[in-house]
Amino acid sequence: MAAAGNGSAAAGGDTKAVFAQIYYKLKEELLADPAFEFTPESHQWIDRMVDYTVLGGKCNRGLSVVDSYKLLKGADVLPEDEMFLACTLGWCIEWLQAFFLVLDDIMDDSHTRRGQPCWFRVPQVGMIACNDGIILRNHISRILRRHFKGKPYYADLLDLFNEVEFKTASGQLLDLITTHEGEKDLTKYNITVHRRIVQYKTAYYSFYLPVACALLLSGEDLNNYGAVENILVEMGIYFQVQDDYLDCYGAPEFIGKIGTDIEDYKCSWLVVQALKRSDESQKKILFENYGKKDPACVMKVKNLYKELNLEAVYLEYESESYKKLIAEIEAQPSVPVQNVLKSFLHKIYKRQK
Amino acid sequence: MAAAGNGSAAAGGDTKAVFAQIYYKLKEELLADPAFEFTPESHQWIDRMVDYTVLGGKCNRGLSVVDSYKLLKGADVLPEDEMFLACTLGWCIEWLQAFFLVLDDIMDDSHTRRGQPCWFRVPQVGMIACNDGIILRNHISRILRRHFKGKPYYADLLDLFNEVEFKTASGQLLDLITTHEGEKDLTKYNITVHRRIVQYKTAYYSFYLPVACALLLSGEDLNNYGAVENILVEMGIYFQVQDDYLDCYGAPEFIGKIGTDIEDYKCSWLVVQALKRSDESQKKILFENYGKKDPACVMKVKNLYKELNLEAVYLEYESESYKKLIAEIEAQPSVPVQNVLKSFLHKIYKRQK
Repeated sequence: MAAAGNGSAAAGGDTKAVFAQIYYKLKEELLADPAFEFTPESHQWIDRMVDYTVLGGKCNRGLSVVDSYKLLKGADVLPEDEMFLACTLGWCIEWLQAFFLVLDDIMDDSHTRRGQPCWFRVPQVGMIACNDGIILRNHISRILRRHFKGKPYYADLLDLFNEVEFKTASGQLLDLITTHEGEKDLTKYNITVHRRIVQYKTAYYSFYLPVACALLLSGEDLNNYGAVENILVEMGIYFQVQDDYLDCYGAPEFIGKIGTDIEDYKCSWLVVQALKRSDESQKKILFENYGKKDPACVMKVKNLYKELNLEAVYLEYESESYKKLIAEIEAQPSVPVQNVLKSFLHKIYKRQK
Repeated sequence: MAAAGNGSAAAGGDTKAVFAQIYYKLKEELLADPAFEFTPESHQWIDRMVDYTVLGGKCNRGLSVVDSYKLLKGADVLPEDEMFLACTLGWCIEWLQAFFLVLDDIMDDSHTRRGQPCWFRVPQVGMIACNDGIILRNHISRILRRHFKGKPYYADLLDLFNEVEFKTASGQLLDLITTHEGEKDLTKYNITVHRRIVQYKTAYYSFYLPVACALLLSGEDLNNYGAVENILVEMGIYFQVQDDYLDCYGAPEFIGKIGTDIEDYKCSWLVVQALKRSDESQKKILFENYGKKDPACVMKVKNLYKELNLEAVYLEYESESYKKLIAEIEAQPSVPVQNVLKSFLHKIYKRQK
């Protein structure tokens, strides 16, 4: 068992290295796509754009396709061809993430992403980034066609990416029209609104998609995994609540950024809880100070959060969510599927970054 | 024959009406998509956005799927189910066009489109239009899944739209980096550059895609239609040359807009011909005046075009292209395919708008 443990750790280290290598192969294939005659300038543009936008993240979503597939197969090491296909699907999720982030940053008028200027802020790029977004999304279809066309699950794979893109873009729309449209109006914020945004905007592509890719690769029919989908979506919502909590309470040196959800008028889980628990005078504080850049306003909101004891509310939510998720996972008939779900849950439970 | 002619004309009138009706059915289905729980606000947003961006054009591309399919089948009237599928594919092309136009207008910082403000210029929309672009593209996948999943050509249909999107976005990239990147430099403009941009950016989605849809719907394998693809792409290039010509020489009351290719520093067929035919002093005029808003500069460019007799050069190009295309079409083994290609050619030959 100790040996197996070491083997698994070594294989884990290996996974990251193999995964990283496969990026270069996929990019090279895209840059040699016979469906377009690249000029030297367009070749260089795409090469640089893909490096800039796809790389630089932690690749948690991509790597979890490989981890999930191994757990489903009960194998520590995969044959080379299966490893390649699992990594390729993982990279497709990283490409999808890059596509969303490039366009989200334009829409949110953001400045930095992964510690460097947003792609559209790079000199000479600007709004060409819109077209780069289209190209990043399209790269997924090109990659899937090259490596999966002819597989019995090819159409299901295309449908999966399309459906997850639809849910994510719909969640993004909800977020945009709730947060930006017209007058700022905190009365629109409640737990149902929060849940719906988070579920569609984040949970499907971050939690459901990697497992669904691993299931398709294992020859499974996704129609039989509705319960697994629900559990993963719940986990995704739980993950985003953590994110909202850490934005305010996380140590900046741990989470790698200084949270600005209060300034940005975000429909955060914290403000939703605060609204629910506030009396009239406390609500007045929120209405007058939430969504303002002024540090004094931000401080008033944070003080109210403290007064309402939101840290304790969060810790209670966290342990309740964990219990509920574990119970649902253990009700699953398949042990390998349970292992996949537990692996996700343990990666995020009580995380501090 | 007169009766058949009338029948065909009546059927043609019918086609437009049926085609127009089917839009409302498709939109209704998208707004009832069970993959997302619409809120009243998001439902209203998508409803309005789709009407605003997809409607208002002439639907030439969409209607030509129906016309092509009829010609391939040699039938004037189609059974209701086939008519529905042909119209649906036509609308997918209209949706694709809307998706490109919404994002192109952002990238070009345009003001009007189809006689109204560009979507991103509508109050409350702004950069949310980026996400609307994603949603428009995704609608195509949703429509295809609903109406074509299970058909033997379903995967080919998805691949076709993906490949045409890839070519179009690649052409758009070429155009953006040639026209906008760095210093304005007319020495970069030549007929090879012009041809490559036009071929990828316009010809595939406007000319090849409608016919390819009709062929797939007829059960054909697109791998057997490489020659047809080439002819349609040539026709698309010819169409864009006409567009470039009409931008300068067309009557504004006919073409529905006042051309600004000279002001916008476009890699137009006219400037490419002018550069090729200019001596050093004429080149100097182009270098000093092309791409400037000042009407006096525009006039100097137009006078040079006149001096170089570009109208005659164009008329020669037009008649040569026609002869070449007709010869290639008549070399095609299938008469129905010849009819499809001739129908396209006769719609555009010697057009004045």
